[in-house]
Amino acid sequence: MTDSVLPDESGETTAIAGNGLLDRRLFLSNTLTFGTISAIAPAAAGATPDEPWMRTPGAGFSNYGTPSAHEKSVVRWISATAMAPGNGVSWSPLHELDGIITPSGLHFERHHNGVPQIDPARHALVINGRVERPLEFTVDTLLRYPRVTRTCVIECGGNSNAGWQQRPIQTAAGYFHGLVSCSEWTGVPLRGLLDEAGIAKGARWLVAEGADAFGMTISLPLEKARDDCLLALFQNGERIRPEQGYPLRLLVPGWEGVVNVKWLRTLTVTDEPVMARNETSRYTELQPDGSARMFTFVMDAKSLITRPSAGMHLAGPGFYELSGLAWSGRGRIARVEVSADAGASWAEAALNEPVLPQCFTRFRLPWHWSGEACVLQSRATDETGYVQPTRAALLAERGRHGYFHYNAIVSWQVDAAGVLTHAYVDAADTESAEDPFDADWD
Amino acid sequence: MTDSVLPDESGETTAIAGNGLLDRRLFLSNTLTFGTISAIAPAAAGATPDEPWMRTPGAGFSNYGTPSAHEKSVVRWISATAMAPGNGVSWSPLHELDGIITPSGLHFERHHNGVPQIDPARHALVINGRVERPLEFTVDTLLRYPRVTRTCVIECGGNSNAGWQQRPIQTAAGYFHGLVSCSEWTGVPLRGLLDEAGIAKGARWLVAEGADAFGMTISLPLEKARDDCLLALFQNGERIRPEQGYPLRLLVPGWEGVVNVKWLRTLTVTDEPVMARNETSRYTELQPDGSARMFTFVMDAKSLITRPSAGMHLAGPGFYELSGLAWSGRGRIARVEVSADAGASWAEAALNEPVLPQCFTRFRLPWHWSGEACVLQSRATDETGYVQPTRAALLAERGRHGYFHYNAIVSWQVDAAGVLTHAYVDAADTESAEDPFDADWD
Repeated sequence: MTDSVLPDESGETTAIAGNGLLDRRLFLSNTLTFGTISAIAPAAAGATPDEPWMRTPGAGFSNYGTPSAHEKSVVRWISATAMAPGNGVSWSPLHELDGIITPSGLHFERHHNGVPQIDPARHALVINGRVERPLEFTVDTLLRYPRVTRTCVIECGGNSNAGWQQRPIQTAAGYFHGLVSCSEWTGVPLRGLLDEAGIAKGARWLVAEGADAFGMTISLPLEKARDDCLLALFQNGERIRPEQGYPLRLLVPGWEGVVNVKWLRTLTVTDEPVMARNETSRYTELQPDGSARMFTFVMDAKSLITRPSAGMHLAGPGFYELSGLAWSGRGRIARVEVSADAGASWAEAALNEPVLPQCFTRFRLPWHWSGEACVLQSRATDETGYVQPTRAALLAERGRHGYFHYNAIVSWQVDAAGVLTHAYVDAADTESAEDPFDADWD
Repeated sequence: MTDSVLPDESGETTAIAGNGLLDRRLFLSNTLTFGTISAIAPAAAGATPDEPWMRTPGAGFSNYGTPSAHEKSVVRWISATAMAPGNGVSWSPLHELDGIITPSGLHFERHHNGVPQIDPARHALVINGRVERPLEFTVDTLLRYPRVTRTCVIECGGNSNAGWQQRPIQTAAGYFHGLVSCSEWTGVPLRGLLDEAGIAKGARWLVAEGADAFGMTISLPLEKARDDCLLALFQNGERIRPEQGYPLRLLVPGWEGVVNVKWLRTLTVTDEPVMARNETSRYTELQPDGSARMFTFVMDAKSLITRPSAGMHLAGPGFYELSGLAWSGRGRIARVEVSADAGASWAEAALNEPVLPQCFTRFRLPWHWSGEACVLQSRATDETGYVQPTRAALLAERGRHGYFHYNAIVSWQVDAAGVLTHAYVDAADTESAEDPFDADWD
């Protein structure tokens, strides 16, 4: 390749943005090596010592496998209400993962009264309300309907809400931003079932209710329901997990998690929203002008660097891959830019194909760390042109009462020892926010 | 829509191939309903009975989730050698799954001496042999290298080999064809590491060795290694599972499973293949002309209908979705055709996007079953123009000693009661084969 940003004949590289950010195609050019970190092998073939597992037969076959015991720290981090242990959340460890699929065992959870253990033979979905023919579908019946498969994220409307705090929370990236996960979902398009029931004239809303002991209830516009919603029966190839709604959940691509009702039992067609608890006292926010921000369904574009991220440390100056996730409830990610100088300059990251709508997009960019303190950031732009805001801009727009839909640019401070912490880098960042974070989930 | 194959004004549908196969776009037309199988809901909202899980708080949060207890029959089916329980296979239950991702816990296994429980802190990869600089990479070092994510299948060269038997084996589709699985793999491109070691002039092969107690060893052309091979560190988002090679395996997209060496410890650059056991006494076949068929790396295009499939039964005449999987080691699937009249006529199935190279492609087609006996088949064509052969054609080409690389069209016989069995439908099918099936894995 002859691109000028690639290494020249002397092997030197040219940065395309401040503080060592290199062209996204550099690793493809096959001329840059990481040679400084590999070691010369001590001898010829068979140089590694013979370990016990090379001398003794290994473990037998298993009907259903589990991760290595050496990965037992890669877990969801649980935060639940002391008085009601089934009410809370668990975060996906995004900082430990790669690719775009979230393993089903690590998909984030948000429950209001625990995970019901539903016998699918005793579960049914009823479509009723303003329809011509109320219908009941057993799970076996739903399994006979034509299906569609799509990979997309579900993100809790409260994800990243520690970002509203006045001081930057210090925790691993996944335990700050991990109320979002990405799965391959397979299910029955809702549109056909609604048409089978027959929507009455004038009906505009749908009220979804779950079969858990909380009786989760929420309203959803019929237009969205008939557009791209699925009754999800499979997750990452197998039947959906109990904590994701077994035997079925409503999948509402790109919209806040709370409307993706789990353990779905009833869909009631209505003329107006039902004004349930989770669309009035929750998932509604006071804005700077005093009005309420309600039915904020769509999740805006967002990104964060997952590797390296808060709590990690760089082994020393040299080449690193910056890698992270971007997604948008509005469609595909068009571009992710990365900065290593606190936003003064930006370099475009490589997006791992395929880039799918409402889906995690993995981005990567080569970086040469000089060994000096700096700030790493990423900024997502989606196909509608929406650009992920700075924290200062988000605070200015949303005011002092923000709790949901926090999607500001995330800043990781790297110190001279290579240790990463979460930082607010804009002077305006720390001036306008109260401390609304509420760890007591309700 | 006005397409003539879609229902006309009377709601009638027109078949596009024999025996009730309907246009793949029919389910998208929003006019065909499955109304015959749903039931009128007994009353208004809340019609389903209140079950215990709606009255009592559910289970708490979990650090790492598992499938529902009601899905405990969805397992890998194990076939191992009595004398050496770590030597055998386990099949993925493809007939129970949907989408294209195989859950990591259900990815097929093929081990020669069990699953080593490797401590990653004591594991390293050495690249040696005909190189300028032999190199050693610890797992931590490899984790620092730039990564690539891609979704693709790994298929055992012996997958579906019961197809060579004279009588059609009667077992579930996955326990016949499930030595293939599809994962999202993330790892380090091998090319850069080989370049870092420096390939000596004239070297053409690479010998890969695993760190298990079998010392799996096999040869691979350097050209493929430098093309698209990865050192896979992540599977479906998390670190690779022990039975898939933790802490790392060689990923050789589209080539037979045996070269995707697990628990990889050594890559030795050579001028010639090493002629190891698994490329001479195994994975080599006697052809009709008496010559040996060796180094048959690429897996040919293949498909099968997974739903409905052998052992399942149809509840009665009416609409069904025919759904299955197609893949090719040579690239993308271009087309899947389905027949409901034993190959007399074919209809093109819908392919679920995105269609990726060397990857499972989920196909679907609406079908109206008349209630009469029939034979269901699928036929894949890949982007190179390769067409999946009939069983008779495969037997004619490969002769009486076939054991590996069985990829013939699969036939499911539907009887008048709706029960599906595996069948050989071509008269030539049962005449030419011996019974080479060897359940004693070695």
